[in-house]
Amino acid sequence: MEIAAETQKKAGFFAYGWDCLKSSKTKLVQVAKNAQKQGQDDPRKIIHSLKVGLALTLISMFYYFRPLYDSFGVSGMWAVLTVVVVFEFTVGATLSKSLNRGFATMVAGALGVGAQELASLFGEEGEPIVLGILVFLLATASTFSRFFPRIKARYDYGVLIFILTFSLVAVSGYRVNDIVELAHQRLSTILVGGATCIIIAIFVCPVWAGEDLHNMTVRNIEKLANFLEGFGGEYFKEPFDGESAVDSKDDKSFLQGYKSALNSKSSEESLANFASWEPCHGRFRFRHPWKQYLMIGAFTRQCAYHIEAISSYINSEIQVSAEFRMKIQEPCTKISSESGKALKALASAIKTMTDPSSADPHVASAKAAVKDLEIALNAASLDETDLLEIIPDATVASTLIEIVKCMEKVSETVHELSGLAHFKGVEPNVTPEKPQLLHRGTIKPIPDSDATDVVITIDEASSVSPENDKGPSKGKQDESHVNMC
Amino acid sequence: MEIAAETQKKAGFFAYGWDCLKSSKTKLVQVAKNAQKQGQDDPRKIIHSLKVGLALTLISMFYYFRPLYDSFGVSGMWAVLTVVVVFEFTVGATLSKSLNRGFATMVAGALGVGAQELASLFGEEGEPIVLGILVFLLATASTFSRFFPRIKARYDYGVLIFILTFSLVAVSGYRVNDIVELAHQRLSTILVGGATCIIIAIFVCPVWAGEDLHNMTVRNIEKLANFLEGFGGEYFKEPFDGESAVDSKDDKSFLQGYKSALNSKSSEESLANFASWEPCHGRFRFRHPWKQYLMIGAFTRQCAYHIEAISSYINSEIQVSAEFRMKIQEPCTKISSESGKALKALASAIKTMTDPSSADPHVASAKAAVKDLEIALNAASLDETDLLEIIPDATVASTLIEIVKCMEKVSETVHELSGLAHFKGVEPNVTPEKPQLLHRGTIKPIPDSDATDVVITIDEASSVSPENDKGPSKGKQDESHVNMC
Repeated sequence: MEIAAETQKKAGFFAYGWDCLKSSKTKLVQVAKNAQKQGQDDPRKIIHSLKVGLALTLISMFYYFRPLYDSFGVSGMWAVLTVVVVFEFTVGATLSKSLNRGFATMVAGALGVGAQELASLFGEEGEPIVLGILVFLLATASTFSRFFPRIKARYDYGVLIFILTFSLVAVSGYRVNDIVELAHQRLSTILVGGATCIIIAIFVCPVWAGEDLHNMTVRNIEKLANFLEGFGGEYFKEPFDGESAVDSKDDKSFLQGYKSALNSKSSEESLANFASWEPCHGRFRFRHPWKQYLMIGAFTRQCAYHIEAISSYINSEIQVSAEFRMKIQEPCTKISSESGKALKALASAIKTMTDPSSADPHVASAKAAVKDLEIALNAASLDETDLLEIIPDATVASTLIEIVKCMEKVSETVHELSGLAHFKGVEPNVTPEKPQLLHRGTIKPIPDSDATDVVITIDEASSVSPENDKGPSKGKQDESHVNMC
Repeated sequence: MEIAAETQKKAGFFAYGWDCLKSSKTKLVQVAKNAQKQGQDDPRKIIHSLKVGLALTLISMFYYFRPLYDSFGVSGMWAVLTVVVVFEFTVGATLSKSLNRGFATMVAGALGVGAQELASLFGEEGEPIVLGILVFLLATASTFSRFFPRIKARYDYGVLIFILTFSLVAVSGYRVNDIVELAHQRLSTILVGGATCIIIAIFVCPVWAGEDLHNMTVRNIEKLANFLEGFGGEYFKEPFDGESAVDSKDDKSFLQGYKSALNSKSSEESLANFASWEPCHGRFRFRHPWKQYLMIGAFTRQCAYHIEAISSYINSEIQVSAEFRMKIQEPCTKISSESGKALKALASAIKTMTDPSSADPHVASAKAAVKDLEIALNAASLDETDLLEIIPDATVASTLIEIVKCMEKVSETVHELSGLAHFKGVEPNVTPEKPQLLHRGTIKPIPDSDATDVVITIDEASSVSPENDKGPSKGKQDESHVNMC
């Protein structure tokens, strides 16, 4: 360091070069650290990169060696292209892209040949005009169809490849006489590329979108549970308690975890979409009710919004009434911790795919605590109290009641999921969408006194949409799903 | 209909066919209606589709006609491929993809030639092994780099094309001796394709990502404003007022609009990313502070979370204390409507890119109303009141106070934006990041008594992050942005 500083005075240029070297070394170290962190956070990222490298090397060698080259021709490069473009992180995404690409190429190829035949009827002068019009019409219509939400969600890539292949075949056909040969070559190379990707994606350390969605749902519910379990202690703690002030620095993470649930909608939706392309794997059947996870996610988010609202009252320095606080502290702490426990039990039921009724006692306790709170509030007299000082506590209490409602809805949707996905210990015939079955005596009597309450409200949950636009249609799709199962 | 029904009895097969025809006709009509709705919602979608059709037809014809075909060879199809893949809805996305594609092709092409030269040193037997190893290493490293958030956001497509081109060039080079010729051909066709897309995207009814982000921010703030302006009247209305019950059915939309702001994060981020690729256009300079819109969006979302929390109290059937309600109704309605007016003024200031200080009086009134509410609460005595009956109103009051805080933060970030983006009527030298300038006497005296308050707290806002992970880094980026401007 000192040497460098001295040199800087003597020879500016040399020093500049040295500085550059040093700074680029620092940058390199930073990039390496960053990479290490990425890899440690999720080792599957490293494995995925190796898988892509493997697939690409295999296909490149395939393309490189003379015998294969001769049979595949220049279109061998389509195999390389397919691997690079189609190989995605999850199996579902890879399958979705491969199948989209394969089908779109076939359909567009056939249409392209048809278009060319049609155009050739118009003579040598008319042909380019007709082809131009056809390409224009098809490209315009297909591009417009990509704005339709359903097509965008599932077939966006397919439509893209459709436009591409149609244009290439329709226009290039004029040159290449043996178009069937070309189509066969291209299709077979795409098949080889796609199949390589699919095989490596499925059989070498697979990453399933469905499992990711499943784990994400569990993790989000657990994070809310952590917040709620700790909230009571954190909110009602004595402000000048030195020990807990030190503690809080270490433990703050559980108070922040819920934030990742606030913006999970788009990633949940794309995972659910990819998951629907996946075959059965591990504990998941082919037609696992992935859409139900979106319902659970929507109610989890709603819960998170309420948590966001009360989180601002933690460590707030507003003066509160000690008398009022004393009255609500116990029921509020109980509501919060029992809701947390219920959510934890639900998360663990999803995780292990077992009957979620172990959450029911906690749901019942949380509801009982709400009753207790209401009784405490009824009994309270506030002759001496400044109203302003009870406002924060009253808001927290009221928001906790809302959180219990959301938590109940999460519980209902998890119960629905357990029926739809045949979780262990759940009577397979009883799907919560059909509560009338309860009267036909086909299921075991419900042991827990509050469980009936839960089952009845489930029907409500499937008709009430938690989010503005997509909720009702989701409900419908789920019903049809039930019928298919 | 009757004929069909009779036929069904006589000839099942014919009836089935008829039904199929009818149902597919219904489906077609539905698709057509859907398409019409899409087009009416945003006519730019139709125009975009026509633009893609135009670009593709131009390039196809370019590729079709003999003279061009001869000079471009088979690689003419790369031009078609480029158009299909690169042409996106917004100018920014198209530019981002074109530039990524162009640069990645160049760099990867050069590296590919280098790799081939290196491999050729190892003799005919060693060459494929060395090439295989190189392809494997590069593909693995590049794929891994796509997981880095920064690279993913801006250069994901470039890295993809880099892997593709490197593999193709490195492996195919063994066959094609005139590799420089090939590289030149491919680059020039990509340039032609990319340039066609960019020219059509920019000069034929352009859709700017930046403008979209700008309008989206305005729209979201307006929706919150609509909710808040109407909330007081809706929440405090008499429950059995027949007339307003009828009214509420027509007016419900303003109570739901805010929901679209809840999940706007990901679309805002991608628009901001694309906007940063765009040249100056309309009222926006090249280095318009797009990141600041993300800050505004984050606080808008936080406001929306609180609105989500109070929206459940509208039309709730919980018994409330009339005495207590009477006391808080006026200040609460005022807080809500003034916050709404302030947000509306801010939205309109962003929309017209003028000085947002017209919102300051409303911010001040809202804060004054909060003071009034606190005084009213202080003065209230609750001897006779059931505590349980005041809880909903107390929660609404307290949440409204939180909303005012969020609204102030929105106001601060909009003031920051007005400084950074040199809105009309804003002193250009005064960026809110540097409040110390206030003491140097370079700006006009602040007319509104509360404005000082706002300016001071702005500094706080840039260091406080509204969302957990990305907030602070955004703040930093904004600061560096200020220095560059």
